[in-house]
Amino acid sequence: MQVSVIVLAAGQGTRMNSDLPKVLHQVAAAPLLHHALATAHRLDPSRIVVVTGHGAEAVAASATAFSEAVETVVQDPQLGTAHAVAQAAPLLADAPGEAIVLYADTPLIREETLRAMLDARARHAVVILGFHARDPGRYGRLLTRGDELLAIREFKDATPQERAVTLCNSGVVCAEARTLFSLIAEVKNDNAAGEYYLTDIVELARSRGLSAGVVLCDEAETLGVNTRQQLAEAEAAFQARARAEALENGVTLTAPETVFFALDTHIGRDAIIGPNVLFGPGVTVESGAEIKGFCHLEGCHISRGATVGPFARLRPGAELAEDVHVGNFVEIKNAILDEGVKVGHLTYIGDADIGEHTNIGAGTVTCNYDGVRKHRTVIGKRAFIGSDTMLVAPVTVGDGALTASGSVITEDVPAEAVAIGRARQVIKPGLATRMFEKLKSIKATKAKGH
Amino acid sequence: MQVSVIVLAAGQGTRMNSDLPKVLHQVAAAPLLHHALATAHRLDPSRIVVVTGHGAEAVAASATAFSEAVETVVQDPQLGTAHAVAQAAPLLADAPGEAIVLYADTPLIREETLRAMLDARARHAVVILGFHARDPGRYGRLLTRGDELLAIREFKDATPQERAVTLCNSGVVCAEARTLFSLIAEVKNDNAAGEYYLTDIVELARSRGLSAGVVLCDEAETLGVNTRQQLAEAEAAFQARARAEALENGVTLTAPETVFFALDTHIGRDAIIGPNVLFGPGVTVESGAEIKGFCHLEGCHISRGATVGPFARLRPGAELAEDVHVGNFVEIKNAILDEGVKVGHLTYIGDADIGEHTNIGAGTVTCNYDGVRKHRTVIGKRAFIGSDTMLVAPVTVGDGALTASGSVITEDVPAEAVAIGRARQVIKPGLATRMFEKLKSIKATKAKGH
Amino acid sequence: MQVSVIVLAAGQGTRMNSDLPKVLHQVAAAPLLHHALATAHRLDPSRIVVVTGHGAEAVAASATAFSEAVETVVQDPQLGTAHAVAQAAPLLADAPGEAIVLYADTPLIREETLRAMLDARARHAVVILGFHARDPGRYGRLLTRGDELLAIREFKDATPQERAVTLCNSGVVCAEARTLFSLIAEVKNDNAAGEYYLTDIVELARSRGLSAGVVLCDEAETLGVNTRQQLAEAEAAFQARARAEALENGVTLTAPETVFFALDTHIGRDAIIGPNVLFGPGVTVESGAEIKGFCHLEGCHISRGATVGPFARLRPGAELAEDVHVGNFVEIKNAILDEGVKVGHLTYIGDADIGEHTNIGAGTVTCNYDGVRKHRTVIGKRAFIGSDTMLVAPVTVGDGALTASGSVITEDVPAEAVAIGRARQVIKPGLATRMFEKLKSIKATKAKGH
Repeated sequence: MQVSVIVLAAGQGTRMNSDLPKVLHQVAAAPLLHHALATAHRLDPSRIVVVTGHGAEAVAASATAFSEAVETVVQDPQLGTAHAVAQAAPLLADAPGEAIVLYADTPLIREETLRAMLDARARHAVVILGFHARDPGRYGRLLTRGDELLAIREFKDATPQERAVTLCNSGVVCAEARTLFSLIAEVKNDNAAGEYYLTDIVELARSRGLSAGVVLCDEAETLGVNTRQQLAEAEAAFQARARAEALENGVTLTAPETVFFALDTHIGRDAIIGPNVLFGPGVTVESGAEIKGFCHLEGCHISRGATVGPFARLRPGAELAEDVHVGNFVEIKNAILDEGVKVGHLTYIGDADIGEHTNIGAGTVTCNYDGVRKHRTVIGKRAFIGSDTMLVAPVTVGDGALTASGSVITEDVPAEAVAIGRARQVIKPGLATRMFEKLKSIKATKAKGH
Repeated sequence: MQVSVIVLAAGQGTRMNSDLPKVLHQVAAAPLLHHALATAHRLDPSRIVVVTGHGAEAVAASATAFSEAVETVVQDPQLGTAHAVAQAAPLLADAPGEAIVLYADTPLIREETLRAMLDARARHAVVILGFHARDPGRYGRLLTRGDELLAIREFKDATPQERAVTLCNSGVVCAEARTLFSLIAEVKNDNAAGEYYLTDIVELARSRGLSAGVVLCDEAETLGVNTRQQLAEAEAAFQARARAEALENGVTLTAPETVFFALDTHIGRDAIIGPNVLFGPGVTVESGAEIKGFCHLEGCHISRGATVGPFARLRPGAELAEDVHVGNFVEIKNAILDEGVKVGHLTYIGDADIGEHTNIGAGTVTCNYDGVRKHRTVIGKRAFIGSDTMLVAPVTVGDGALTASGSVITEDVPAEAVAIGRARQVIKPGLATRMFEKLKSIKATKAKGH
Repeated sequence: MQVSVIVLAAGQGTRMNSDLPKVLHQVAAAPLLHHALATAHRLDPSRIVVVTGHGAEAVAASATAFSEAVETVVQDPQLGTAHAVAQAAPLLADAPGEAIVLYADTPLIREETLRAMLDARARHAVVILGFHARDPGRYGRLLTRGDELLAIREFKDATPQERAVTLCNSGVVCAEARTLFSLIAEVKNDNAAGEYYLTDIVELARSRGLSAGVVLCDEAETLGVNTRQQLAEAEAAFQARARAEALENGVTLTAPETVFFALDTHIGRDAIIGPNVLFGPGVTVESGAEIKGFCHLEGCHISRGATVGPFARLRPGAELAEDVHVGNFVEIKNAILDEGVKVGHLTYIGDADIGEHTNIGAGTVTCNYDGVRKHRTVIGKRAFIGSDTMLVAPVTVGDGALTASGSVITEDVPAEAVAIGRARQVIKPGLATRMFEKLKSIKATKAKGH
């Protein structure tokens, strides 16, 4: 089945009290827009069109960053939801197959829900996504007979009896693309706001003798973000869902409520995730790896048997092979750590390749920046980097080589060699006592002077 | 309008199970006492008098630490709330204007609530703060007609009908200062406990033909702290309120429930605060700054465009100008970082001034302590401090200077110079292999020996 | 009173979706099995027998790790709970005194509850632990008269009237050991599943004219772990209980909901525990010590007046004497820090003894690993270890000695001496400017070349 998806992303979001366009605010380390796009993407659609408006340039850039295949159109001025969808007509009016209208500020709609809407198209020309609202408030009400939708009644036009209905309109629509755009072309703006409402297509469809239907979802899926409070609620809802799925998939989460996943986090069965772990975008953790408490991970891959943390930071490009150990107060960026590498303590590894079973001592730094450019450090297999070694890149340390602790390595170290770059220790007997006595006497003199 | 505030802070707090006086236990990184004082302070009062008792010296010191203008009196022995207020009579009995009685163990009363009480004084001689209790339990009941208070009925004296009243007494009182102290002078202690109760002034006022009235607040405001469980509840309530206000003000909180504010935290619009950020006292974050996850901040200022963390600790006196970057495992204390300074990794900067656009390499330490005194490090603009540089203060590095990584800088570095303090690297071919073989053979021999 | 405890730990736990046997999954940093064993242990029992099955070897090893005194038997094949208990018959059938049957996947049963069951044995030959279920679902129902148990009715056999009963069977049983095993010998497997059910002993007892009784506990105690979701619920329930107990005992928990205790954590009165503190096994914190936010502690002892964190990691064998200070980004492992030692910043101390009032500078590392073995560092009293000192173990620094910052200490330092191991600083005037110009010109040339 061919599907096109239209994502409405033009809204201003005044109540966010922000300079950032609403749909670029983040949930699970991804813009709201990307959540709608990710859900759309799972339908394997022919085309995805994002309708931008407020902050059009930034929103379009974010859409393209999600996927080059996403197309964008601008809605300007913004004259209602039907008008927004109409902006996609030049691209989709003749598209074969189905069209679905999503909202970039509604990040929690499930793929299954959209598939149920596509299925319902076998029975109805136009399918609307509805939900039973705990507090229906001023939502539009869906008036139905069975799963047939008779009308969408705006709250202000509803009778008391109709207001008692709790089945509400989410705004999500599915129809054959040609039908959708042909209906939208007939929507009028003869209302108080002078806007073109997408919901009007139900009445228009029925007046053509076409059937409209309702598919139900959980109210939680329809949470729309208009305030930062709702943004926080969407984050909480996303995390609750992601944590439950991880547990279901056999991930050990010591304290699920303290773990924050990104939209695209992948974690294998029997991986162990301690308390207070934050996942940024692009993290994969294989089965049987362990992430201890207080870790911050982005754009990295952690293989089976690897252990990370506590207090570790993995940044984009960190690739940990099997049985790698990254310990506390260690940062890894854009570096490949081969099987069994140990980086236990207080270390910065950036722009580096480290061979298997190499041990990196505490306080080691890859000095990758010369003030102008970044350079790479390459360390061989089974090497031993002594504590507090400065590796001034570009530099290479060979297989089985050793650097003496406290050395600054500016030249390549051959395999099996020892590299030393430090002064010999000298002892000054009794000097410490004399020094402290002098310092104390200076302090006492100064104190007297004041 | 002139206002005097009396804060009762004499209670022992036995149920806290602590050596610390109850009102010095903290919520939002400030003693309970400071919460009452901060609320009082917002009324711009002529005088604030704290009545101390248990741990009088420590409590008085804390009151003075809040503001030199706060006065203290001691209640000894402690013979009830009216007796406590009476201790302030020598200071306030003739004070012009209004008097308000607050409680140091009740940290959540809002300024607006107290202003409503002051407003209600136009209608009533004595104004009592009441609340509708979800579970009225043994609270004193407020018997009213409209907003007129007829009586405060102690639970033990109440009829079943009166016990059914859910409107309860918070203890907070507002009256003209002269009226208050004149009423208090008449309070008797002819009750089972032999104590002087502040609530008796309502009956005394009415017997003089003066009107008493009630102002209502939310029950949450009246939470009194008597146990550590209640202390934790007060903390949670404070944080919930502070988080909601931050969101309302346009602050981005990825996971509000994991951010802990101090009583005096100020955060600008569109600042981004990641998960697990702890604010101690005295932090200001400007608009558009970003604090990533796992940061611990106290007494610091973070300017627009600056980014901090993850895993950063800013201590008192850390001043970050615009676009400064402080990265992971970095501690900054009593230091001024000018515009665009970068301190990315594993660094301790204490007692320092760093000029604009200077870059500090990983593993750098300002060696500010000589065992007796602290000294200052001064670094110019656009300098480049190589990784693992030890800056032995007092020391100065000039504009545009560079320190070689691994150097110990004990003498001033002129502008544009390179300073090197490290040994030249030496290579010992094959030595690593021979060394490890020897170590392994020693180990094997010892293992055999045992 | 002599008591034997049988802990059933044979279950497979398929719904955990894990390769790890269910009872080895952890709550509060201890296997589920250890929770049951710890509760059993508090009864001071004569013998504890764990019945293993699925993953028998690993489970038996874990049982023995808890205490050498714990005995294990294997149930293979697994033919029901009575059959599981029967495996302990060779060890316990003739044991004097009482026997209690516990479940290794039910970690929250309280000691008091088991003592109440032992007490109830004065009135009944067989005592069953029951609870009122909020949602009785398919639990077996306890049919009672007073505290006398008439029958345990399996859900599927219950009449509608019996199903309305909310008093349910926890499975925990107490009886005289001889009685228990004699009853179990008579249990038959003539049911659909062909299993031997422990609950059948109630009917068998009554048919012998023996009395059965019920002791009640809170439903929360009976939480059984069959899924990872339930494991997380058990963790949350354990932590809620531990936090409440700590508050009750006079511990200050700034944000109790962010502190995670281990099964065996001990914290003294008026100790202060900041937000986001994780306790692994084996931690003791004395009265008046302070652990700041973001700390990770395992196997360590923190004495009165010591302060730890934020961002500190204490690993097994870290012993902090009174008034020790361990600051941020510091790791301590297998090391004794005497009174008043300060380790403020960015330091790794492993395998070391540090004398009283010694100060360890930022960036110090005990280089305890030579690639083959670990060695010890010994530092005397009132020594001053300069920043970025590498202590290459085995090495000793005497009382009152000083190491210059940036030194690599490979030889012992006598008391009161200064040890220096660093190159003298050299200044190259103007070189920084020339270097950066050259680097920029190279970059520009390369950029042009591409």
